[in-house]
Amino acid sequence: MEIKLVQKVMKVNDELAQGVRARLRAAGVACVNMMSAPGSGKTSLIEAALRHCGGSPRIGVIEGDPDTTLDAERVAACGAPVVQINTDGGCHLEANLVGRALGDLDLDALDILLIENVGNLVCPVAFDLGEDRRVAVVSVTEGHDKPAKYPKLFRGVDLVVLNKADLLPYVDFDMVFFRDTVRRLNPGVLILDVSCRTGDGVDAWVAWLRETAAVADKGKAG
Amino acid sequence: MEIKLVQKVMKVNDELAQGVRARLRAAGVACVNMMSAPGSGKTSLIEAALRHCGGSPRIGVIEGDPDTTLDAERVAACGAPVVQINTDGGCHLEANLVGRALGDLDLDALDILLIENVGNLVCPVAFDLGEDRRVAVVSVTEGHDKPAKYPKLFRGVDLVVLNKADLLPYVDFDMVFFRDTVRRLNPGVLILDVSCRTGDGVDAWVAWLRETAAVADKGKAG
Repeated sequence: MEIKLVQKVMKVNDELAQGVRARLRAAGVACVNMMSAPGSGKTSLIEAALRHCGGSPRIGVIEGDPDTTLDAERVAACGAPVVQINTDGGCHLEANLVGRALGDLDLDALDILLIENVGNLVCPVAFDLGEDRRVAVVSVTEGHDKPAKYPKLFRGVDLVVLNKADLLPYVDFDMVFFRDTVRRLNPGVLILDVSCRTGDGVDAWVAWLRETAAVADKGKAG
Repeated sequence: MEIKLVQKVMKVNDELAQGVRARLRAAGVACVNMMSAPGSGKTSLIEAALRHCGGSPRIGVIEGDPDTTLDAERVAACGAPVVQINTDGGCHLEANLVGRALGDLDLDALDILLIENVGNLVCPVAFDLGEDRRVAVVSVTEGHDKPAKYPKLFRGVDLVVLNKADLLPYVDFDMVFFRDTVRRLNPGVLILDVSCRTGDGVDAWVAWLRETAAVADKGKAG
């Protein structure tokens, strides 16, 4: 059986992403697309932000996973509005899924929307979700070579979070190699060392979210 | 611009995979497709096998990565024949890439071929590479929820390696949840706890590779 496909997928996604962006901007809601390998701690970073930000900014969350609602349950337990998207095995989120999820969120009650993409260092990179900023999360246990091996992700992000920093004493992680690679791929990008277990670096992560939300709000006022 | 695609990709891949399988079987070489998230320690497991197996079985390696030859350099340093495939950002290996790499390996000098797939828990699953057995690698730092979130991978593997077991004291890993999920998805599958740092479990991993190689050799004799 032959199925003829018209490959306008990317074009359609980009158009839908612009629609998502317009809706969020009209509501003054900043949007962050969080990408990482599976198990790097994206959900833990969201939980840490919710627990430490004292309600400012007001955070909403979209969780993307191939299966289960485990992450949405963790976020909901922190008291935040959350929508779980199951991709049924799909390897990345697309703008049409985000657009539909927006209907389940009260945008007027939010300052910032965190989208946790499917755990994958490759496929999500090509899909604009309507975000204002992109974050790459790497945990120290994954090794210092991840930016070198997956350069496309790291070239296009506004923040790199080096997570699980509390485990540095127990792993072979070459910090100089890691930082040099990130700087080479993305000169000037902010790198934050964070441990959600100890709380180290969470303040800086929350400060970055506040600054991101403030920029979106200023854009609305302008 | 509209590009019309004839979606015979999967069919073509399956045919090429059968060709790879036939070539390897004729040479009496077993083939293992190793899949995991980025940074789970696939390369470390290959290094550990090479250092502990005492030349039996004779191991050849194909390394798949979006970019760099870092992994092939590590394997070559252990004295094993290795071919690096760079997918130029691609999210999984396909049988045509493996077929071309076979030309750079002396199959008569091998008992087993380890293919390290691109770090990705979703996309590689759909692509037969001509392997006899599949291995899923998970590190304890990724969390006990990975099999639940990425069920398709775990349903179709012959071995689950739980890697970086030395880090268990420092992370929140629910072993009962993990094992129960794996058993539910894939009843009877072997689960090996391994630490490449301490060497715990490496003997069992090498024994599994020897048994896999022996089955292939028996198939050739038959």
